[in-house]
Amino acid sequence: MIEEIQGGGITSVPGIKASGVHCGIKKEGLDLALIYSSTPSHFACMYTTNRIKGAHILVNKRRKGKIQAVVINSGNANCCTGRRGIDDAERMAVLTAERLNISPSAVLVASTGIIGVPLPMDKIERGIDEAVKKLSEEGGIRASQAILTTDTRPKQFAIRYSMNGERLVIGGIAKGAGMIHPRLGTMLAFIATNAAISSQSLRIYLKKSVDNSFNLITVDGDTSPNDLVVLLANGNLKMGQDIPYHKKFQEALDYVTHHLAKMIVEDGEGATKLIVIHVKGARSMSDAKRVAFSIGKSNLVKSAIYGCSPNWGRIITASGGAGVNIKQDKIDIYLGGEMVCKDGCMVNFDLVKVREILQKKEVLLTVDLKLGSSEARVLTPDLSPEYVKINAP
Amino acid sequence: MIEEIQGGGITSVPGIKASGVHCGIKKEGLDLALIYSSTPSHFACMYTTNRIKGAHILVNKRRKGKIQAVVINSGNANCCTGRRGIDDAERMAVLTAERLNISPSAVLVASTGIIGVPLPMDKIERGIDEAVKKLSEEGGIRASQAILTTDTRPKQFAIRYSMNGERLVIGGIAKGAGMIHPRLGTMLAFIATNAAISSQSLRIYLKKSVDNSFNLITVDGDTSPNDLVVLLANGNLKMGQDIPYHKKFQEALDYVTHHLAKMIVEDGEGATKLIVIHVKGARSMSDAKRVAFSIGKSNLVKSAIYGCSPNWGRIITASGGAGVNIKQDKIDIYLGGEMVCKDGCMVNFDLVKVREILQKKEVLLTVDLKLGSSEARVLTPDLSPEYVKINAP
Repeated sequence: MIEEIQGGGITSVPGIKASGVHCGIKKEGLDLALIYSSTPSHFACMYTTNRIKGAHILVNKRRKGKIQAVVINSGNANCCTGRRGIDDAERMAVLTAERLNISPSAVLVASTGIIGVPLPMDKIERGIDEAVKKLSEEGGIRASQAILTTDTRPKQFAIRYSMNGERLVIGGIAKGAGMIHPRLGTMLAFIATNAAISSQSLRIYLKKSVDNSFNLITVDGDTSPNDLVVLLANGNLKMGQDIPYHKKFQEALDYVTHHLAKMIVEDGEGATKLIVIHVKGARSMSDAKRVAFSIGKSNLVKSAIYGCSPNWGRIITASGGAGVNIKQDKIDIYLGGEMVCKDGCMVNFDLVKVREILQKKEVLLTVDLKLGSSEARVLTPDLSPEYVKINAP
Repeated sequence: MIEEIQGGGITSVPGIKASGVHCGIKKEGLDLALIYSSTPSHFACMYTTNRIKGAHILVNKRRKGKIQAVVINSGNANCCTGRRGIDDAERMAVLTAERLNISPSAVLVASTGIIGVPLPMDKIERGIDEAVKKLSEEGGIRASQAILTTDTRPKQFAIRYSMNGERLVIGGIAKGAGMIHPRLGTMLAFIATNAAISSQSLRIYLKKSVDNSFNLITVDGDTSPNDLVVLLANGNLKMGQDIPYHKKFQEALDYVTHHLAKMIVEDGEGATKLIVIHVKGARSMSDAKRVAFSIGKSNLVKSAIYGCSPNWGRIITASGGAGVNIKQDKIDIYLGGEMVCKDGCMVNFDLVKVREILQKKEVLLTVDLKLGSSEARVLTPDLSPEYVKINAP
């Protein structure tokens, strides 16, 4: 039984401490976070697939073996900063390692914020100094705040379940809220567990889990160059080291990544509601995802949902534009539980009821292609005038 | 020498008459257009590539040989209307043919507007009646008005040039303004010429021309199910019947389609300015187009340009997300003539000067990949809060 930990996050995991401080990269608010494991931990990372990559992506790819800390700054992406950017990212690891008395190769680094501007290393050094001092088992929430950019609220989540009498915990933090359209890589998310699992197995767990969570969301169709998901397992709980694959652990991890991904979408730039796009009856999972993303990226669909307009014509149009071989005269569309289109044509529906469905904070769009048995769910926020205002400073 | 005809449009072409009337499909404004050629004309069509197709697409694909009229209604797309929709579209051809005393197979049909609602055939019959009576050599402007939906202004354009002492004219009308992201097919555009050219040659001319005009624009990334471009040649001018390919005619046609396409973008939903995205130094034309469209579809880039923000980080990010093998440390970016990014890193630029560039009605973004010699130009409007308001009724 997976049990959610109320108010839980990354420091719900035994052996994990964290902190979040303000060091002046941003004018106000926390802007430097540190996550620390009392024991060296196996880990797995997934990176952005954007051809443009932040310096921390290149630095983290050099890390092998075990890690013990992750240092993250917000307010500056350290991306498109050339050789200097890579040196700065490595320097963040060195500064952190010195103060924690560990090797720089045991430190992962992440940055998020404005592109093209070098990091203010003097501020970052002071920030790391303070962050190390403030590490605590209650610091997860402050760490989750310190990694935010245009997000309006922190995102943390944790669960526990029992296995062979031992209590396994998975907890994580994440940030959005724009440039969100992960492809294999994803935005920033840091997840820890007290299970003992090899790095090799962690990579398998993480890839599966990310494909079904962070890779099934889109805010604005743009993939960030700084996307990074980290999963670390500190082995505080002696479980699973030698078992190649636990279905139960995968389920628990999926539970956490799904919630963090959903939190990112709910807090997408300018979002007033969450749209769940469920495409079923597809010939393949890949087809289902392509149709769902075509709908999820459609400004026309997302504006209509913002305006509570039951404009299924835009949904079927976005489906048809996905580049997937679908049959117009087979498509059924539902808003909430209400059928609005059958076999590609309008059906009479209760407009009052459908408008009520569209006014909720979470709106389910179901497209049944009736061609096969594959399905996919993609999450996206609606598109509001506020989105443009946020992005037209 | 290609010469623009001031205020010219489709009826600038000798032998072409047109009209536009109000028949009540829309509450107000013209909503039914008719284009008529005094002589049977060779023609070529290009259709939407969306898997969902309006009834008129299916009906027009049945047409062979020569055509003499095109009847178009706005306010109702006759799309996702099933068997009845196709019967209605054919009936529009029959009603038009009867009044013009020609064969229904010589009539092309087009519809644009709301999806999923059957056509009000009684109103359309009255409209066709009146449209036939009002056909005139000055009717082009009214026809261009009658095909509009969310457009704020009509779009017509015509040119003439001399060839072997004869005066060749090409004129056309078009409509936008949302669901614009043509792929092989495109939005509604009707173009006529007095040249005598076979249907087979017309298809070659049209495909080339559309690929370099309507297929290089995007308003919102959605491909309409009703996209249709028609080119007809009535042979009033006895030129070129037997010559397989005139470079000069291609140039002249490209001139017209480019202008009509540009008019569509300039009048894109909520547009405050035109963005010209010029990607050069690509390994192939296909790569250049993919990068340019990735930028042109980015809400983040388009919001930044709306807000006059020189946010080249979003431009390089959209380039990197195009799925094309590009090199981060080679990319140069220019806003207007000002370099803002060199070899993937920021350069010092004159912020005042760049802000002035971004405040103009037309903004040129140049991305030099420095990998090859191929290039592409894509046109798109900026993204304003008004766009969302238009689409969230």
